[in-house]
Amino acid sequence: MGSSTADRIVVRGHDLVEDLIGKVSLGDMAFLELKGRLPSRQESTVFNALAVTLVEHGMTPSAIATRMTYFGAPESVQGAVAAGLLGIGDRFGGSVEDAARTLQEALAGAGSSPDLATLAREIVATHKEKKAPIAGLGHPIHKPIDPRTPKLFAIAAENGFSGRFVELMQVISAEASRSYGRDLPVNATGAIGAIASELDIPWRVSRGLAVLARAIGLVGHIQEELDEPLAAEIWTRIDQEVSGE
Amino acid sequence: MGSSTADRIVVRGHDLVEDLIGKVSLGDMAFLELKGRLPSRQESTVFNALAVTLVEHGMTPSAIATRMTYFGAPESVQGAVAAGLLGIGDRFGGSVEDAARTLQEALAGAGSSPDLATLAREIVATHKEKKAPIAGLGHPIHKPIDPRTPKLFAIAAENGFSGRFVELMQVISAEASRSYGRDLPVNATGAIGAIASELDIPWRVSRGLAVLARAIGLVGHIQEELDEPLAAEIWTRIDQEVSGE
Amino acid sequence: MGSSTADRIVVRGHDLVEDLIGKVSLGDMAFLELKGRLPSRQESTVFNALAVTLVEHGMTPSAIATRMTYFGAPESVQGAVAAGLLGIGDRFGGSVEDAARTLQEALAGAGSSPDLATLAREIVATHKEKKAPIAGLGHPIHKPIDPRTPKLFAIAAENGFSGRFVELMQVISAEASRSYGRDLPVNATGAIGAIASELDIPWRVSRGLAVLARAIGLVGHIQEELDEPLAAEIWTRIDQEVSGE
Amino acid sequence: MGSSTADRIVVRGHDLVEDLIGKVSLGDMAFLELKGRLPSRQESTVFNALAVTLVEHGMTPSAIATRMTYFGAPESVQGAVAAGLLGIGDRFGGSVEDAARTLQEALAGAGSSPDLATLAREIVATHKEKKAPIAGLGHPIHKPIDPRTPKLFAIAAENGFSGRFVELMQVISAEASRSYGRDLPVNATGAIGAIASELDIPWRVSRGLAVLARAIGLVGHIQEELDEPLAAEIWTRIDQEVSGE
Repeated sequence: MGSSTADRIVVRGHDLVEDLIGKVSLGDMAFLELKGRLPSRQESTVFNALAVTLVEHGMTPSAIATRMTYFGAPESVQGAVAAGLLGIGDRFGGSVEDAARTLQEALAGAGSSPDLATLAREIVATHKEKKAPIAGLGHPIHKPIDPRTPKLFAIAAENGFSGRFVELMQVISAEASRSYGRDLPVNATGAIGAIASELDIPWRVSRGLAVLARAIGLVGHIQEELDEPLAAEIWTRIDQEVSGE
Repeated sequence: MGSSTADRIVVRGHDLVEDLIGKVSLGDMAFLELKGRLPSRQESTVFNALAVTLVEHGMTPSAIATRMTYFGAPESVQGAVAAGLLGIGDRFGGSVEDAARTLQEALAGAGSSPDLATLAREIVATHKEKKAPIAGLGHPIHKPIDPRTPKLFAIAAENGFSGRFVELMQVISAEASRSYGRDLPVNATGAIGAIASELDIPWRVSRGLAVLARAIGLVGHIQEELDEPLAAEIWTRIDQEVSGE
Repeated sequence: MGSSTADRIVVRGHDLVEDLIGKVSLGDMAFLELKGRLPSRQESTVFNALAVTLVEHGMTPSAIATRMTYFGAPESVQGAVAAGLLGIGDRFGGSVEDAARTLQEALAGAGSSPDLATLAREIVATHKEKKAPIAGLGHPIHKPIDPRTPKLFAIAAENGFSGRFVELMQVISAEASRSYGRDLPVNATGAIGAIASELDIPWRVSRGLAVLARAIGLVGHIQEELDEPLAAEIWTRIDQEVSGE
Repeated sequence: MGSSTADRIVVRGHDLVEDLIGKVSLGDMAFLELKGRLPSRQESTVFNALAVTLVEHGMTPSAIATRMTYFGAPESVQGAVAAGLLGIGDRFGGSVEDAARTLQEALAGAGSSPDLATLAREIVATHKEKKAPIAGLGHPIHKPIDPRTPKLFAIAAENGFSGRFVELMQVISAEASRSYGRDLPVNATGAIGAIASELDIPWRVSRGLAVLARAIGLVGHIQEELDEPLAAEIWTRIDQEVSGE
């Protein structure tokens, strides 16, 4: 949080005017808000890479909600962005959170020399028993691998953030592929959940990372609606189809 | 918007994995979403400075809404951020938009050699007649000047973005101070509206800049609630006070 | 608002348990919330008719936003309803508000024996000059007349709520049809705006009537998604179409 | 959902103009949206009683969020209502849902002559083991009993909707009070969850009942802000207190 007097504004212990404006980027400001301190150069590179990956995923349900809402309430940019964010729930933003939670809970209870293979077997077995998908594995479109994953893992490694969380995510992927008898590579949300854990971002906050990045992408969708409106046409097509049934 | 195939994701004409992740910062990604192209180094410095200024304003009504919502619906980080964003309306985010709109509309109709003094007189007179406040001037706390304004104007000037919009904003401030007989300096939202106009961001999108920056600050408030919860106490105090009336 | 002690809950001056639960309907409770008192039998009939008319309008942009959001965040019924409500803005809910505002402002300034024909001419001329549509007139689908309008006007008349606001709305319709040279009958939002004015509901609150009624309809869309999901299919079709461009 | 032609609007199989407007109340329309059919007279009485109970709970976190949002974005009634609804989550609206779910899942698996005492013992034991509170029991303010509960149970009984769900809720209350050694009477959300189950409303939809009722109450808070604004004062007090720490 911040505080203000007549000539000074402080954000998380930093003088906004002297130390932040013009000196830190928006991504580093987001790191400050999530972690309470500014990032090192390496942390900044890794954190910005995660956030950039989450900004824009095309015409998702969340983007459609933003465009429909902007069509009905053009006076309220904030309402259109809010409507889109509300869809970053269990099915979408939740997968980053679930991956981070699985990794953080497994390693929190595992002592200083964890046996990753055993942890991975337990995680896969538990999910299999509950018939629950393992967050962060597989992708309906990006096959055989999600191209974002090796890129993110490489950036993490180059900057010293490829530790036990990343390794455990990979061991889980191998164990799940073996156990289910089909390729289940780490997808982008799995990579982000693992690397966010390396940056010591608590899993409860990790969905917030998806939310703040997506807010940027949704403003982009509104900008596109201003340039080249699609909402009315999308609506008409849906309406025709539904009426035609 | 973007498109995806099995091994390639394209965002606004850029290959996400090859050209963006690890290469551009979150702030530059936001510039790309708003403008359809990546910023120059100078544009990046100026744009990030604007966005950083808008992230966090302390315990605002919008931050209170986020904390109250998170208290009631801790399962939904996205809902708590959305609730806070919904308060970035005419009274708050609207002032950036209104300042940008005033400047852009005045200069759009003014030809290649505009007479800024005449434009300013007309703007002040029109607002005075309607008894409407001029967006971007004065501040209840930051007196005699808002410390963010000279900082933002300096960064804009150093990077070649102190042109007619910034000048007109300053001339309006001088004319309004003269006309109303009291100091009405350019505040942070006036500076941001003017500099966003220099960056050629349409006024209709400028509220989106406030919205995306504030989404980051609101995730920060949720992170603080996790560390040190205030929502229950805030609620209790309000409830006691209201009941006691 | 209400207040509570250990054994008594009071809502707007009424004991919730003794006087409201089991004695008043949900629609009358809404009247109490908007007006601060319970309705007469006639007011209840008219108010419930207005609200019922606003509940459900099929697969509107707002309903699509609710379904998309529920698809992404099935854990949050409240988020899905909120997303849909956010589209009840200037283009949709706004028309009830605008119609009510036009009527209330015209008659507020018109003394005790207003000349409705003159008022209507002024209203039509003002809108024509600004090239602004007159709220509450015409309908793209329901031609030549909106079947809801005569029904609502009949219910208002039978219950003693067909006064100057309703008459002015009809005179505006006649004047606009004459002036534009095409049929511009009163549509449902015009009828609702006029009758809400007869019930002495301030125009600023009249959008709230649309919002509370639509919340009910949006919960209905969620119930339908549970029974027969359409969201995934809608999304896939839109995504294909957009990608195919 | 509904469908429209030029002269006919159909909502859930009913002609809106012929069969609904002026004939059914808003509460019965809500029943139609949730259940797909109109209620009997008895169902209507019981359903309206449940909904009326949920409309207004005073200055809750959700009402504060609505008032803060309306203060920041007075142009957007829909945004202010949406912000308040977003707080009807696991902590508040969730308790109706959880109570309904517990009852419906227990009786779904229990055959035609369920042993309620055994079911109650299992439910209490399971919650105790997980250290999870049992939804629908106890209340911080309304002691020794929540006055809404006997009223709602009486209305349900008079109308033929006091069956196994209501009985099981009461047996759970007795068993929990015995097991925890302190009074844990059925509270209003427990009564509503049980009676909604008697009305055959699926637990997944029951949170929607809280959401639609609360939308009405939140419009009421906006109406109060228009009459007697509290938001600015609430904000100032919070801000002072937080700054003073």
